Amino acid sequence: MERIKCTLQYDGTFFAGFQVQPDKRTVQQVLEEALKKMHKGSFVRVTPSGRTDAGVHAVGQVVHFDTPLSIPEKNWLMAFQSLLPDDVFVDRVEKVADSFHARFDVKEKEYRYKIYTGEKPDIFRRHYSYHVSRPLHVEAMSEACTHLIGTHDFTSLSSAKSTVKGDKIRTIYEAELYEDGDEVIIRIKGSGFLYNMVRIIAGTLIEVGTGKREPGDFKHIIEGKDRSLAGKTAPPQGLYLWKVSYD
Amino acid sequence: MERIKCTLQYDGTFFAGFQVQPDKRTVQQVLEEALKKMHKGSFVRVTPSGRTDAGVHAVGQVVHFDTPLSIPEKNWLMAFQSLLPDDVFVDRVEKVADSFHARFDVKEKEYRYKIYTGEKPDIFRRHYSYHVSRPLHVEAMSEACTHLIGTHDFTSLSSAKSTVKGDKIRTIYEAELYEDGDEVIIRIKGSGFLYNMVRIIAGTLIEVGTGKREPGDFKHIIEGKDRSLAGKTAPPQGLYLWKVSYD
Repeated sequence: MERIKCTLQYDGTFFAGFQVQPDKRTVQQVLEEALKKMHKGSFVRVTPSGRTDAGVHAVGQVVHFDTPLSIPEKNWLMAFQSLLPDDVFVDRVEKVADSFHARFDVKEKEYRYKIYTGEKPDIFRRHYSYHVSRPLHVEAMSEACTHLIGTHDFTSLSSAKSTVKGDKIRTIYEAELYEDGDEVIIRIKGSGFLYNMVRIIAGTLIEVGTGKREPGDFKHIIEGKDRSLAGKTAPPQGLYLWKVSYD
Repeated sequence: MERIKCTLQYDGTFFAGFQVQPDKRTVQQVLEEALKKMHKGSFVRVTPSGRTDAGVHAVGQVVHFDTPLSIPEKNWLMAFQSLLPDDVFVDRVEKVADSFHARFDVKEKEYRYKIYTGEKPDIFRRHYSYHVSRPLHVEAMSEACTHLIGTHDFTSLSSAKSTVKGDKIRTIYEAELYEDGDEVIIRIKGSGFLYNMVRIIAGTLIEVGTGKREPGDFKHIIEGKDRSLAGKTAPPQGLYLWKVSYD
Protein backbone atom coordinates (compact mmCIF):
# COMPACT_ATOMS: atom_id res chain seq x y z
CA MET A 1 0.00 0.00 0.00
CA GLU A 2 1.10 3.54 -0.71
CA ARG A 3 -0.06 6.66 1.11
CA ILE A 4 -0.97 9.53 -1.21
CA LYS A 5 -1.27 13.22 -0.29
CA CYS A 6 -3.48 15.35 -2.56
CA THR A 7 -3.79 19.12 -2.69
CA LEU A 8 -7.08 20.23 -4.15
CA GLN A 9 -9.34 23.21 -4.93
CA TYR A 10 -13.10 23.17 -4.76
CA ASP A 11 -15.93 25.57 -5.35
CA GLY A 12 -18.09 25.00 -2.28
CA THR A 13 -21.24 26.52 -3.78
CA PHE A 14 -22.97 23.29 -4.71
CA PHE A 15 -21.57 21.10 -1.95
CA ALA A 16 -23.18 20.45 1.44
CA GLY A 17 -19.65 20.79 2.86
CA PHE A 18 -16.67 18.42 2.83
CA GLN A 19 -17.84 15.56 5.01
CA VAL A 20 -20.08 12.74 3.76
CA GLN A 21 -23.76 13.08 4.76
CA PRO A 22 -26.65 10.86 3.69
CA ASP A 23 -28.34 12.04 0.46
CA LYS A 24 -26.17 15.12 0.17
CA ARG A 25 -23.56 16.05 -2.38
CA THR A 26 -20.26 16.50 -0.54
CA VAL A 27 -16.62 16.88 -1.56
CA GLN A 28 -15.62 13.70 0.28
CA GLN A 29 -18.35 11.78 -1.54
CA VAL A 30 -17.24 12.86 -5.04
CA LEU A 31 -13.58 12.18 -4.19
CA GLU A 32 -14.39 8.71 -2.83
CA GLU A 33 -16.58 7.94 -5.86
CA ALA A 34 -13.74 8.90 -8.22
CA LEU A 35 -11.30 6.72 -6.23
CA LYS A 36 -13.76 3.83 -6.26
CA LYS A 37 -13.77 3.93 -10.07
CA MET A 38 -9.97 3.96 -10.16
CA HIS A 39 -9.92 0.97 -7.76
CA LYS A 40 -12.38 -1.20 -9.72
CA GLY A 41 -15.18 -0.80 -7.21
CA SER A 42 -13.16 -0.99 -3.98
CA PHE A 43 -13.89 1.71 -1.44
CA VAL A 44 -11.01 4.07 -0.56
CA ARG A 45 -11.40 6.34 2.49
CA VAL A 46 -10.24 9.94 2.13
CA THR A 47 -9.02 11.87 5.21
CA PRO A 48 -8.92 15.69 5.01
CA SER A 49 -6.91 18.28 6.97
CA GLY A 50 -10.31 19.26 8.36
CA ARG A 51 -13.91 19.71 7.27
CA THR A 52 -15.32 22.75 5.54
CA ASP A 53 -18.98 23.80 5.74
CA ALA A 54 -21.57 24.09 2.97
CA GLY A 55 -20.69 26.96 0.62
CA VAL A 56 -17.11 27.31 1.90
CA HIS A 57 -14.41 27.10 -0.78
CA ALA A 58 -10.93 25.62 -0.82
CA VAL A 59 -7.89 26.74 -2.78
CA GLY A 60 -5.50 24.38 -1.00
CA GLN A 61 -7.34 21.67 0.94
CA VAL A 62 -5.19 18.60 1.66
CA VAL A 63 -6.37 14.98 1.95
CA HIS A 64 -4.62 11.63 2.23
CA PHE A 65 -5.63 8.10 1.26
CA ASP A 66 -4.04 4.66 0.98
CA THR A 67 -3.93 2.72 -2.26
CA PRO A 68 -2.66 -0.61 -3.57
CA LEU A 69 -2.06 1.08 -6.96
CA SER A 70 1.40 2.20 -7.90
CA ILE A 71 1.05 4.71 -10.69
CA PRO A 72 3.02 7.86 -11.57
CA GLU A 73 1.85 11.13 -9.99
CA LYS A 74 0.87 12.67 -13.31
CA ASN A 75 -1.42 9.71 -14.06
CA TRP A 76 -3.21 10.28 -10.77
CA LEU A 77 -3.77 13.90 -11.81
CA MET A 78 -5.18 12.83 -15.18
CA ALA A 79 -7.44 10.23 -13.60
CA PHE A 80 -8.82 12.76 -11.10
CA GLN A 81 -9.31 15.32 -13.85
CA SER A 82 -11.37 12.88 -15.91
CA LEU A 83 -13.41 11.43 -13.02
CA LEU A 84 -14.14 14.46 -10.84
CA PRO A 85 -16.92 17.00 -11.52
CA ASP A 86 -15.92 20.47 -12.71
CA ASP A 87 -16.13 22.06 -9.25
CA VAL A 88 -13.27 20.01 -7.77
CA PHE A 89 -9.73 20.09 -9.10
CA VAL A 90 -6.79 18.08 -7.77
CA ASP A 91 -3.72 20.29 -8.16
CA ARG A 92 -1.01 18.05 -6.81
CA VAL A 93 -0.49 14.39 -5.90
CA GLU A 94 2.50 13.21 -3.86
CA LYS A 95 3.55 9.85 -2.47
CA VAL A 96 4.24 10.31 1.24
CA ALA A 97 5.45 8.25 4.20
CA ASP A 98 2.91 5.83 5.72
CA SER A 99 3.07 7.91 8.90
CA PHE A 100 1.78 11.08 7.18
CA HIS A 101 -1.67 12.16 8.38
CA ALA A 102 -3.55 15.03 6.68
CA ARG A 103 -5.25 16.12 9.92
CA PHE A 104 -2.87 15.23 12.77
CA ASP A 105 0.25 16.55 11.04
CA VAL A 106 -1.08 20.03 10.17
CA LYS A 107 1.46 22.65 11.19
CA GLU A 108 -0.36 25.74 9.99
CA LYS A 109 -3.58 26.64 8.19
CA GLU A 110 -4.33 29.77 6.25
CA TYR A 111 -7.85 31.02 5.60
CA ARG A 112 -8.97 34.06 3.62
CA TYR A 113 -12.31 35.80 3.82
CA LYS A 114 -13.38 37.97 0.87
CA ILE A 115 -15.65 40.98 1.35
CA TYR A 116 -16.95 42.67 -1.78
CA THR A 117 -17.46 46.36 -1.00
CA GLY A 118 -19.15 47.67 -4.16
CA GLU A 119 -22.24 49.83 -3.80
CA LYS A 120 -24.37 47.52 -5.96
CA PRO A 121 -24.58 43.73 -5.84
CA ASP A 122 -22.27 41.92 -8.29
CA ILE A 123 -24.11 38.75 -9.28
CA PHE A 124 -20.92 37.22 -10.68
CA ARG A 125 -19.42 37.23 -7.21
CA ARG A 126 -22.52 36.25 -5.23
CA HIS A 127 -21.11 32.79 -4.46
CA TYR A 128 -17.49 33.93 -4.02
CA SER A 129 -17.54 36.86 -1.60
CA TYR A 130 -19.72 38.51 1.04
CA HIS A 131 -21.25 41.76 -0.10
CA VAL A 132 -21.06 44.63 2.41
CA SER A 133 -22.27 47.83 0.78
CA ARG A 134 -21.74 50.12 3.79
CA PRO A 135 -18.28 51.80 3.71
CA LEU A 136 -15.67 49.86 5.70
CA HIS A 137 -13.06 51.53 7.88
CA VAL A 138 -10.17 49.28 6.89
CA GLU A 139 -7.62 50.84 9.27
CA ALA A 140 -9.87 50.13 12.26
CA MET A 141 -10.31 46.53 11.09
CA SER A 142 -6.52 46.16 10.69
CA GLU A 143 -5.98 47.45 14.19
CA ALA A 144 -8.58 44.99 15.52
CA CYS A 145 -6.66 42.15 13.80
CA THR A 146 -3.58 42.78 15.95
CA HIS A 147 -5.51 41.62 19.04
CA LEU A 148 -6.02 38.20 17.47
CA ILE A 149 -2.33 37.41 17.08
CA GLY A 150 -0.83 35.12 19.70
CA THR A 151 -2.01 32.21 21.84
CA HIS A 152 -5.49 32.74 23.26
CA ASP A 153 -8.57 30.88 24.43
CA PHE A 154 -10.89 31.54 21.47
CA THR A 155 -14.16 30.47 23.15
CA SER A 156 -15.70 33.86 22.32
CA LEU A 157 -14.82 33.54 18.65
CA SER A 158 -16.03 30.00 17.99
CA SER A 159 -19.45 28.45 17.68
CA ALA A 160 -21.16 27.81 21.01
CA LYS A 161 -22.59 24.68 19.35
CA SER A 162 -19.13 23.20 18.82
CA THR A 163 -18.80 19.63 20.02
CA VAL A 164 -15.02 19.63 19.80
CA LYS A 165 -13.42 18.03 22.81
CA GLY A 166 -10.47 19.62 24.49
CA ASP A 167 -9.52 23.20 25.09
CA LYS A 168 -10.21 26.16 22.85
CA ILE A 169 -6.70 27.53 22.98
CA ARG A 170 -5.21 28.18 19.57
CA THR A 171 -2.31 30.22 18.24
CA ILE A 172 -2.80 32.81 15.52
CA TYR A 173 0.44 33.63 13.73
CA GLU A 174 -0.78 36.27 11.32
CA ALA A 175 -4.02 38.22 10.89
CA GLU A 176 -4.21 41.09 8.46
CA LEU A 177 -6.34 42.82 5.85
CA TYR A 178 -5.50 43.70 2.31
CA GLU A 179 -7.46 45.39 -0.43
CA ASP A 180 -7.72 44.06 -3.97
CA GLY A 181 -9.76 46.38 -6.18
CA ASP A 182 -13.22 46.57 -4.61
CA GLU A 183 -12.56 43.65 -2.25
CA VAL A 184 -11.29 43.69 1.31
CA ILE A 185 -9.67 40.37 2.16
CA ILE A 186 -8.97 39.04 5.63
CA ARG A 187 -5.94 36.77 5.74
CA ILE A 188 -5.40 34.67 8.85
CA LYS A 189 -2.84 31.98 9.66
CA GLY A 190 -2.82 29.81 12.71
CA SER A 191 -1.99 26.50 14.30
CA GLY A 192 -5.62 25.48 13.96
CA PHE A 193 -9.10 26.92 14.01
CA LEU A 194 -12.26 26.15 16.00
CA TYR A 195 -15.69 25.60 14.46
CA ASN A 196 -16.91 28.76 12.64
CA MET A 197 -13.95 30.69 14.08
CA VAL A 198 -12.89 32.50 10.88
CA ARG A 199 -16.48 33.40 10.00
CA ILE A 200 -17.12 34.79 13.50
CA ILE A 201 -13.85 36.75 13.34
CA ALA A 202 -14.90 38.09 9.89
CA GLY A 203 -18.37 39.02 11.12
CA THR A 204 -16.97 40.80 14.17
CA LEU A 205 -14.28 42.59 12.12
CA ILE A 206 -17.00 43.85 9.76
CA GLU A 207 -18.82 45.31 12.79
CA VAL A 208 -15.59 47.16 13.61
CA GLY A 209 -15.37 48.29 9.97
CA THR A 210 -18.87 49.74 10.00
CA GLY A 211 -18.28 51.54 13.30
CA LYS A 212 -20.54 49.36 15.42
CA ARG A 213 -17.56 48.30 17.55
CA GLU A 214 -14.13 49.71 18.42
CA PRO A 215 -10.91 47.94 17.34
CA GLY A 216 -9.94 47.50 21.02
CA ASP A 217 -13.17 45.57 21.70
CA PHE A 218 -11.48 42.46 20.31
CA LYS A 219 -9.24 42.27 23.36
CA HIS A 220 -12.25 42.26 25.73
CA ILE A 221 -14.22 39.86 23.55
CA ILE A 222 -11.39 37.30 23.71
CA GLU A 223 -10.83 37.80 27.45
CA GLY A 224 -14.56 37.34 28.16
CA LYS A 225 -14.60 33.74 26.83
CA ASP A 226 -18.26 34.07 25.86
CA ARG A 227 -19.57 33.63 22.31
CA SER A 228 -22.33 36.19 22.85
CA LEU A 229 -19.72 38.97 23.21
CA ALA A 230 -18.64 38.62 19.56
CA GLY A 231 -20.45 39.61 16.36
CA LYS A 232 -22.46 37.69 13.83
CA THR A 233 -21.09 34.69 11.94
CA ALA A 234 -20.28 35.97 8.43
CA PRO A 235 -21.81 33.85 5.61
CA PRO A 236 -19.90 30.89 4.12
CA GLN A 237 -19.44 32.12 0.53
CA GLY A 238 -16.68 34.58 1.48
CA LEU A 239 -14.52 31.90 3.15
CA TYR A 240 -11.62 30.07 1.50
CA LEU A 241 -9.41 27.39 3.06
CA TRP A 242 -6.34 28.83 1.38
CA LYS A 243 -3.37 26.69 2.39
CA VAL A 244 -2.50 23.84 4.73
CA SER A 245 1.16 23.46 5.72
CA TYR A 246 3.04 20.46 7.08
CA ASP A 247 6.60 20.00 8.32
CA MET B 1 -49.83 52.50 -20.05
CA GLU B 2 -46.23 53.40 -19.38
CA ARG B 3 -43.20 52.05 -21.22
CA ILE B 4 -40.37 51.01 -18.93
CA LYS B 5 -36.70 50.48 -19.87
CA CYS B 6 -34.68 48.20 -17.60
CA THR B 7 -30.94 47.68 -17.51
CA LEU B 8 -29.98 44.33 -16.01
CA GLN B 9 -27.15 41.93 -15.25
CA TYR B 10 -27.41 38.18 -15.36
CA ASP B 11 -25.15 35.24 -14.78
CA GLY B 12 -25.87 33.07 -17.84
CA THR B 13 -24.53 29.85 -16.29
CA PHE B 14 -27.84 28.31 -15.30
CA PHE B 15 -29.98 29.80 -18.06
CA ALA B 16 -30.74 28.21 -21.42
CA GLY B 17 -30.24 31.69 -22.89
CA PHE B 18 -32.42 34.79 -22.87
CA GLN B 19 -35.39 33.76 -24.98
CA VAL B 20 -38.31 31.70 -23.68
CA GLN B 21 -38.18 28.01 -24.64
CA PRO B 22 -40.55 25.27 -23.50
CA ASP B 23 -39.45 23.53 -20.29
CA LYS B 24 -36.23 25.53 -20.06
CA ARG B 25 -35.13 28.11 -17.55
CA THR B 26 -34.51 31.36 -19.43
CA VAL B 27 -33.92 34.99 -18.46
CA GLN B 28 -37.06 36.13 -20.26
CA GLN B 29 -39.11 33.54 -18.39
CA VAL B 30 -37.92 34.63 -14.92
CA LEU B 31 -38.41 38.32 -15.81
CA GLU B 32 -41.94 37.68 -17.12
CA GLU B 33 -42.77 35.57 -14.07
CA ALA B 34 -41.64 38.38 -11.76
CA LEU B 35 -43.70 40.92 -13.75
CA LYS B 36 -46.72 38.62 -13.66
CA LYS B 37 -46.56 38.63 -9.86
CA MET B 38 -46.32 42.43 -9.82
CA HIS B 39 -49.34 42.63 -12.16
CA LYS B 40 -51.63 40.32 -10.16
CA GLY B 41 -51.43 37.48 -12.65
CA SER B 42 -51.52 39.47 -15.90
CA PHE B 43 -48.90 38.57 -18.45
CA VAL B 44 -46.39 41.28 -19.39
CA ARG B 45 -44.19 40.74 -22.46
CA VAL B 46 -40.51 41.69 -22.16
CA THR B 47 -38.56 42.77 -25.28
CA PRO B 48 -34.74 42.66 -25.09
CA SER B 49 -32.06 44.49 -27.10
CA GLY B 50 -31.28 41.05 -28.48
CA ARG B 51 -31.04 37.45 -27.33
CA THR B 52 -28.09 35.87 -25.64
CA ASP B 53 -27.23 32.17 -25.80
CA ALA B 54 -27.04 29.60 -23.02
CA GLY B 55 -24.10 30.32 -20.71
CA VAL B 56 -23.57 33.87 -22.03
CA HIS B 57 -23.59 36.61 -19.38
CA ALA B 58 -24.87 40.17 -19.36
CA VAL B 59 -23.56 43.16 -17.44
CA GLY B 60 -25.78 45.65 -19.25
CA GLN B 61 -28.63 43.97 -21.11
CA VAL B 62 -31.59 46.25 -21.82
CA VAL B 63 -35.26 45.28 -22.06
CA HIS B 64 -38.51 47.20 -22.32
CA PHE B 65 -42.09 46.41 -21.31
CA ASP B 66 -45.43 48.18 -21.01
CA THR B 67 -47.32 48.45 -17.76
CA PRO B 68 -50.55 49.94 -16.42
CA LEU B 69 -48.79 50.45 -13.08
CA SER B 70 -47.47 53.86 -12.19
CA ILE B 71 -44.95 53.41 -9.42
CA PRO B 72 -41.68 55.18 -8.60
CA GLU B 73 -38.51 53.83 -10.19
CA LYS B 74 -36.97 52.79 -6.88
CA ASN B 75 -40.06 50.70 -6.06
CA TRP B 76 -39.64 48.83 -9.36
CA LEU B 77 -36.04 48.09 -8.33
CA MET B 78 -37.14 46.78 -4.94
CA ALA B 79 -39.89 44.66 -6.47
CA PHE B 80 -37.47 43.10 -8.97
CA GLN B 81 -34.91 42.48 -6.25
CA SER B 82 -37.44 40.61 -4.13
CA LEU B 83 -39.04 38.63 -6.99
CA LEU B 84 -36.06 37.70 -9.20
CA PRO B 85 -33.70 34.78 -8.51
CA ASP B 86 -30.16 35.61 -7.36
CA ASP B 87 -28.63 35.26 -10.84
CA VAL B 88 -30.52 38.23 -12.33
CA PHE B 89 -30.23 41.77 -11.04
CA VAL B 90 -32.07 44.81 -12.37
CA ASP B 91 -29.68 47.75 -12.06
CA ARG B 92 -31.79 50.56 -13.40
CA VAL B 93 -35.44 51.27 -14.28
CA GLU B 94 -36.46 54.31 -16.35
CA LYS B 95 -39.78 55.52 -17.70
CA VAL B 96 -39.31 56.13 -21.43
CA ALA B 97 -41.34 57.43 -24.37
CA ASP B 98 -43.91 55.01 -25.84
CA SER B 99 -41.86 55.01 -29.04
CA PHE B 100 -38.74 53.57 -27.36
CA HIS B 101 -37.88 50.06 -28.53
CA ALA B 102 -35.11 48.05 -26.83
CA ARG B 103 -34.16 46.25 -30.06
CA PHE B 104 -34.93 48.61 -32.93
CA ASP B 105 -33.42 51.69 -31.28
CA VAL B 106 -30.02 50.18 -30.41
CA LYS B 107 -27.27 52.54 -31.49
CA GLU B 108 -24.28 50.58 -30.29
CA LYS B 109 -23.55 47.34 -28.47
CA GLU B 110 -20.45 46.42 -26.56
CA TYR B 111 -19.39 42.85 -25.86
CA ARG B 112 -16.40 41.59 -23.92
CA TYR B 113 -14.86 38.15 -24.09
CA LYS B 114 -12.70 36.99 -21.15
CA ILE B 115 -9.85 34.56 -21.65
CA TYR B 116 -8.18 33.19 -18.52
CA THR B 117 -4.55 32.45 -19.34
CA GLY B 118 -3.27 30.74 -16.19
CA GLU B 119 -1.31 27.53 -16.52
CA LYS B 120 -3.70 25.55 -14.31
CA PRO B 121 -7.51 25.55 -14.38
CA ASP B 122 -9.15 27.98 -11.95
CA ILE B 123 -12.40 26.36 -10.90
CA PHE B 124 -13.73 29.63 -9.51
CA ARG B 125 -13.69 31.11 -13.01
CA ARG B 126 -14.87 28.04 -14.94
CA HIS B 127 -18.26 29.64 -15.68
CA TYR B 128 -16.92 33.18 -16.19
CA SER B 129 -14.02 32.94 -18.63
CA TYR B 130 -12.54 30.63 -21.27
CA HIS B 131 -9.35 28.93 -20.13
CA VAL B 132 -6.52 28.93 -22.68
CA SER B 133 -3.37 27.56 -21.07
CA ARG B 134 -1.10 27.92 -24.12
CA PRO B 135 0.79 31.26 -24.10
CA LEU B 136 -1.03 33.96 -26.11
CA HIS B 137 0.76 36.46 -28.33
CA VAL B 138 -1.31 39.48 -27.34
CA GLU B 139 0.38 41.90 -29.77
CA ALA B 140 -0.51 39.66 -32.73
CA MET B 141 -4.12 39.44 -31.50
CA SER B 142 -4.27 43.25 -31.15
CA GLU B 143 -2.97 43.68 -34.68
CA ALA B 144 -5.61 41.23 -35.96
CA CYS B 145 -8.31 43.33 -34.22
CA THR B 146 -7.52 46.33 -36.41
CA HIS B 147 -8.84 44.42 -39.46
CA LEU B 148 -12.27 44.13 -37.83
CA ILE B 149 -12.86 47.86 -37.48
CA GLY B 150 -15.09 49.48 -40.10
CA THR B 151 -18.07 48.42 -42.18
CA HIS B 152 -17.76 44.89 -43.57
CA ASP B 153 -19.81 41.93 -44.70
CA PHE B 154 -19.26 39.60 -41.71
CA THR B 155 -20.54 36.38 -43.34
CA SER B 156 -17.20 34.66 -42.53
CA LEU B 157 -17.43 35.61 -38.86
CA SER B 158 -21.02 34.59 -38.15
CA SER B 159 -22.75 31.27 -37.79
CA ALA B 160 -23.52 29.57 -41.10
CA LYS B 161 -26.68 28.31 -39.36
CA SER B 162 -27.99 31.86 -38.88
CA THR B 163 -31.54 32.37 -40.07
CA VAL B 164 -31.34 36.16 -39.88
CA LYS B 165 -32.88 37.81 -42.91
CA GLY B 166 -31.14 40.67 -44.65
CA ASP B 167 -27.52 41.41 -45.27
CA LYS B 168 -24.58 40.56 -43.05
CA ILE B 169 -23.03 44.00 -43.23
CA ARG B 170 -22.24 45.47 -39.86
CA THR B 171 -20.04 48.29 -38.57
CA ILE B 172 -17.45 47.67 -35.88
CA TYR B 173 -16.43 50.88 -34.13
CA GLU B 174 -13.82 49.53 -31.74
CA ALA B 175 -12.05 46.21 -31.31
CA GLU B 176 -9.16 45.89 -28.90
CA LEU B 177 -7.53 43.70 -26.29
CA TYR B 178 -6.54 44.51 -22.76
CA GLU B 179 -4.94 42.49 -20.01
CA ASP B 180 -6.24 42.35 -16.46
CA GLY B 181 -4.01 40.19 -14.27
CA ASP B 182 -4.04 36.73 -15.78
CA GLU B 183 -6.95 37.52 -18.11
CA VAL B 184 -6.86 38.75 -21.70
CA ILE B 185 -10.11 40.54 -22.52
CA ILE B 186 -11.45 41.27 -25.99
CA ARG B 187 -13.54 44.44 -26.10
CA ILE B 188 -15.65 45.04 -29.18
CA LYS B 189 -18.19 47.74 -30.00
CA GLY B 190 -20.40 47.85 -33.04
CA SER B 191 -23.69 48.85 -34.60
CA GLY B 192 -24.90 45.29 -34.21
CA PHE B 193 -23.65 41.73 -34.22
CA LEU B 194 -24.63 38.60 -36.15
CA TYR B 195 -25.36 35.22 -34.59
CA ASN B 196 -22.26 33.86 -32.79
CA MET B 197 -20.18 36.69 -34.26
CA VAL B 198 -18.27 37.69 -31.11
CA ARG B 199 -17.57 34.06 -30.20
CA ILE B 200 -16.26 33.31 -33.71
CA ILE B 201 -14.10 36.46 -33.61
CA ALA B 202 -12.81 35.38 -30.16
CA GLY B 203 -12.08 31.83 -31.36
CA THR B 204 -10.25 33.10 -34.44
CA LEU B 205 -8.29 35.70 -32.44
CA ILE B 206 -7.17 32.95 -30.05
CA GLU B 207 -5.84 31.01 -33.07
CA VAL B 208 -3.81 34.12 -33.96
CA GLY B 209 -2.64 34.31 -30.34
CA THR B 210 -1.40 30.72 -30.34
CA GLY B 211 0.40 31.17 -33.67
CA LYS B 212 -1.92 29.00 -35.75
CA ARG B 213 -2.82 32.04 -37.89
CA GLU B 214 -1.23 35.36 -38.83
CA PRO B 215 -2.81 38.69 -37.79
CA GLY B 216 -3.23 39.63 -41.47
CA ASP B 217 -5.36 36.52 -42.08
CA PHE B 218 -8.36 38.40 -40.67
CA LYS B 219 -8.45 40.59 -43.78
CA HIS B 220 -8.66 37.56 -46.09
CA ILE B 221 -11.15 35.78 -43.85
CA ILE B 222 -13.55 38.75 -44.01
CA GLU B 223 -13.04 39.21 -47.76
CA GLY B 224 -13.73 35.52 -48.43
CA LYS B 225 -17.31 35.68 -47.04
CA ASP B 226 -17.19 32.03 -46.04
CA ARG B 227 -17.63 30.82 -42.45
CA SER B 228 -15.25 27.90 -43.01
CA LEU B 229 -12.34 30.34 -43.42
CA ALA B 230 -12.57 31.48 -39.79
CA GLY B 231 -11.64 29.66 -36.59
CA LYS B 232 -13.66 27.79 -34.00
CA THR B 233 -16.54 29.35 -32.09
CA ALA B 234 -15.20 30.12 -28.61
CA PRO B 235 -17.35 28.76 -25.76
CA PRO B 236 -20.18 30.85 -24.25
CA GLN B 237 -18.89 31.27 -20.69
CA GLY B 238 -16.29 33.89 -21.70
CA LEU B 239 -18.86 36.17 -23.35
CA TYR B 240 -20.50 39.19 -21.72
CA LEU B 241 -23.05 41.54 -23.27
CA TRP B 242 -21.44 44.56 -21.65
CA LYS B 243 -23.42 47.61 -22.67
CA VAL B 244 -26.25 48.62 -24.99
CA SER B 245 -26.42 52.27 -26.02
CA TYR B 246 -29.34 54.29 -27.36
CA ASP B 247 -29.60 57.84 -28.65
